[in-house]
Amino acid sequence: MTTLNQLADLVGGKAIGQSDLPISGVSELNDGKPGTISFLGNQKYRKFLNSTKASAVIVSSAELLEGRNGIEVQNPQLAFSKILKIFNPELLKQKGIHPTAVIDPTAHIDEDVCIGPYAVIEANSKIGKGTIVGASSVISLNSVIGKECRIHARVTLYHDSLIGDRVVIFSGSVIGSDGFGFVTDKDTHHKIPQVGKVIIGSDVEIGANCVIDRATIGTTRIGNMTKLDNLVHIAHNVKIGIGCLFAAGVGIAGTVTIKDFCIFAGQSGVVPHVTIGSKAIIAAQSGVTKSLEGGELYSGMPARKIREQHRKNAVLQSLSALKKRVDKLENLVLKNEHNT
Amino acid sequence: MTTLNQLADLVGGKAIGQSDLPISGVSELNDGKPGTISFLGNQKYRKFLNSTKASAVIVSSAELLEGRNGIEVQNPQLAFSKILKIFNPELLKQKGIHPTAVIDPTAHIDEDVCIGPYAVIEANSKIGKGTIVGASSVISLNSVIGKECRIHARVTLYHDSLIGDRVVIFSGSVIGSDGFGFVTDKDTHHKIPQVGKVIIGSDVEIGANCVIDRATIGTTRIGNMTKLDNLVHIAHNVKIGIGCLFAAGVGIAGTVTIKDFCIFAGQSGVVPHVTIGSKAIIAAQSGVTKSLEGGELYSGMPARKIREQHRKNAVLQSLSALKKRVDKLENLVLKNEHNT
Amino acid sequence: MTTLNQLADLVGGKAIGQSDLPISGVSELNDGKPGTISFLGNQKYRKFLNSTKASAVIVSSAELLEGRNGIEVQNPQLAFSKILKIFNPELLKQKGIHPTAVIDPTAHIDEDVCIGPYAVIEANSKIGKGTIVGASSVISLNSVIGKECRIHARVTLYHDSLIGDRVVIFSGSVIGSDGFGFVTDKDTHHKIPQVGKVIIGSDVEIGANCVIDRATIGTTRIGNMTKLDNLVHIAHNVKIGIGCLFAAGVGIAGTVTIKDFCIFAGQSGVVPHVTIGSKAIIAAQSGVTKSLEGGELYSGMPARKIREQHRKNAVLQSLSALKKRVDKLENLVLKNEHNT
Repeated sequence: MTTLNQLADLVGGKAIGQSDLPISGVSELNDGKPGTISFLGNQKYRKFLNSTKASAVIVSSAELLEGRNGIEVQNPQLAFSKILKIFNPELLKQKGIHPTAVIDPTAHIDEDVCIGPYAVIEANSKIGKGTIVGASSVISLNSVIGKECRIHARVTLYHDSLIGDRVVIFSGSVIGSDGFGFVTDKDTHHKIPQVGKVIIGSDVEIGANCVIDRATIGTTRIGNMTKLDNLVHIAHNVKIGIGCLFAAGVGIAGTVTIKDFCIFAGQSGVVPHVTIGSKAIIAAQSGVTKSLEGGELYSGMPARKIREQHRKNAVLQSLSALKKRVDKLENLVLKNEHNT
Repeated sequence: MTTLNQLADLVGGKAIGQSDLPISGVSELNDGKPGTISFLGNQKYRKFLNSTKASAVIVSSAELLEGRNGIEVQNPQLAFSKILKIFNPELLKQKGIHPTAVIDPTAHIDEDVCIGPYAVIEANSKIGKGTIVGASSVISLNSVIGKECRIHARVTLYHDSLIGDRVVIFSGSVIGSDGFGFVTDKDTHHKIPQVGKVIIGSDVEIGANCVIDRATIGTTRIGNMTKLDNLVHIAHNVKIGIGCLFAAGVGIAGTVTIKDFCIFAGQSGVVPHVTIGSKAIIAAQSGVTKSLEGGELYSGMPARKIREQHRKNAVLQSLSALKKRVDKLENLVLKNEHNT
Repeated sequence: MTTLNQLADLVGGKAIGQSDLPISGVSELNDGKPGTISFLGNQKYRKFLNSTKASAVIVSSAELLEGRNGIEVQNPQLAFSKILKIFNPELLKQKGIHPTAVIDPTAHIDEDVCIGPYAVIEANSKIGKGTIVGASSVISLNSVIGKECRIHARVTLYHDSLIGDRVVIFSGSVIGSDGFGFVTDKDTHHKIPQVGKVIIGSDVEIGANCVIDRATIGTTRIGNMTKLDNLVHIAHNVKIGIGCLFAAGVGIAGTVTIKDFCIFAGQSGVVPHVTIGSKAIIAAQSGVTKSLEGGELYSGMPARKIREQHRKNAVLQSLSALKKRVDKLENLVLKNEHNT
């Protein structure tokens, strides 16, 4: 049994209240379960602090607890994340290589690799130490996967894909499919051979049913620690820096460059051949139509700095007022007209 | 051979014209085939009533037939749907469990279950009576599927997913993948363990290549009789009520609550942490950015009541007129200026 | 070793500079590799002509080369595309039918067909000469695939799908899933049986994780030489002409007709039951809400001719100026008021 004090030590925080309180798990703040610990991250949920049945709550300031048990720590969500791991050790991974996996004799499979049923590992591919490849996944010709990766069930890696260490790819995602490249001549679309590849850095996470296309020539590149949600599209020759976040449904067109630590909210998109500076934030459903400098929040289609959007909206809001002023002026002027 | 009268009885309608007319199938109104029955649902297609080659038409009022054969019934589309089933019995389902399916000995497979080639059924999962699991689908650890479900080919159910009765999931969909949860501390994105689950009610239909993420903690929940089209994204901890309809490409962000009988048109989206009241309708490509009351039609990004959108558009439309009035005023005023 | 002159002959262009220059491959213009040839397509990249390390560049006018080696040709991108094929012959395709493929005895497999591991070919299906079906793909009942097609790994073809010749379908795509059709009666959504089919012409390319639904009754049709990028949704009963291009994330709702050679940019969409004329271009993220004539460029939601959008934007831009004019008028009029 773990105590509140032990958990506080674990997360570098301070136990508030009954320090030997036994904690057996975690729960959500809005209902909560007795004997568990929850956390207050978003202040929107502060109202649940009074009603939660959780026995302890992680907060950023002891005052918020108003006498309840809890842990005070600088980043409650980070602390909670660590505690979640304690109470939910990773599911026992499958062991070894399933006898139904089809593995080319020229593939190099490192030690401690697990390969699920009906996976296909093609010629000259390499799978690093401790990596798991899920059921029915296809790892094609010349692909290289690093150490401790989790390639889930039903993932496709096309030929020549290079994947770093500790990369997670969820079910249904496709890496290295052809870029969308055609050249039209006399009403005929000729396919441009897509002979480049995809390189994915380390600590990247790719959600379910995403698609990352290979480069036409050269490389489509996803930097270290970049994270993609579900159903994200990354086109050919895109270069993404480190630590970027892409919410679900984002689409990045061909030959776009995105610098480090950018954030793309859901269903936003970028047209081809533009560059976005580091730490830019693109709001949900926005459409980037030209290169943007970093460090700013952009919204709308076409995406503009949020301040410009606010100004535009303010002008629009004032339109009715302007109309009334013109009504009044007309009355005055026309009256004067009649008087003169 | 079925007669017009027999079909009218079946759908609770009234045969109009030759009641013993033999009907051998169904066809589309716009061309139609002799010997078949069609229907008029959308009034937009009324023009095809004169030219269709179909021998009978289901309509909401006998007058529309103008002497042609047909069936008068309150809901022509519903009637047509019933007649479609008569002429198109479900394809003979595969029988039994394919010898290549990999089924863990601890899985509980009920009677009359069909499992396709290369499906993988993991430990402690349960599959209810009469359910079909398609080729190369993966049913993971501790998943429970109810009765008479149709899990098509190439579907992934992650661990701990609970599926009701008569649920249909089309090819490529992924249920129970990790939510997109990271906490950023000193330029490092730490993964928040996603230890919750997905619960899907009964009579739910999920299109192809959708993704429904598991909850961080707690449950992502899809209510009874809710229907999803293709490529829909449902994030972690979303709660959806009963009877909702989600068209293709919709994205619902984390911890959103959607009450009963809401309708989301194509490519619309919702930001995290908001609640949408029952029977709300969200127009195509709209973006919901705050909680919305039910029973209204919303459109735009940010989504607003359709009446507000119309008002805003009207003001915009009037802008040119306003400009002309100001032109005129200026002329008058400046003339007066000169005169005084 | 190939010379510049030989490549110029191949593409019907003229070698400029050292005609016997040996060329061993291709590279991107922006960095380039010595010994290779690159091309200048987009004038945006003209700045790289001076710094590229490529030994030759394909251009539309010899003047651009300013003394460098290269090839002058009318369409540099098309020429480059042909040269790419020379240096990158198609990867050695797998040979024959993998012993793990499950092929129904009633399926007709033509000569020179390759079928990957764990593919499933159901009853009464036909696969044409020289076609490849990738690993874990499912070709269902009564499907017909033409000659020289490339059905990649993990593709689903539902029953009765008809595919022309030289069609390419990338991993994860689903053809012939049910249309999203329900008729609601007294708060119950009744499924409309989807008994139609999908017909795909020849020389069509379909990206990864796309979905094309079968018709309710009749046919969902994709015309010859139409190309789809990734994550595209085509609903039931859609009719698409020849040579159309659909960028990633496009969604086309039910019963839409799209004539020949239309272009849909990324994340655009169309509501149900409308018709779009040939050679229409729909800008990124636009939403088509009514039928549109061909030969025009449309943008926005609702999509309007680009000229109308520009006019609307111009009026908006002028709003601040208008406000100042009203300010001035008020001053004048009110002054006059006081004076009179």
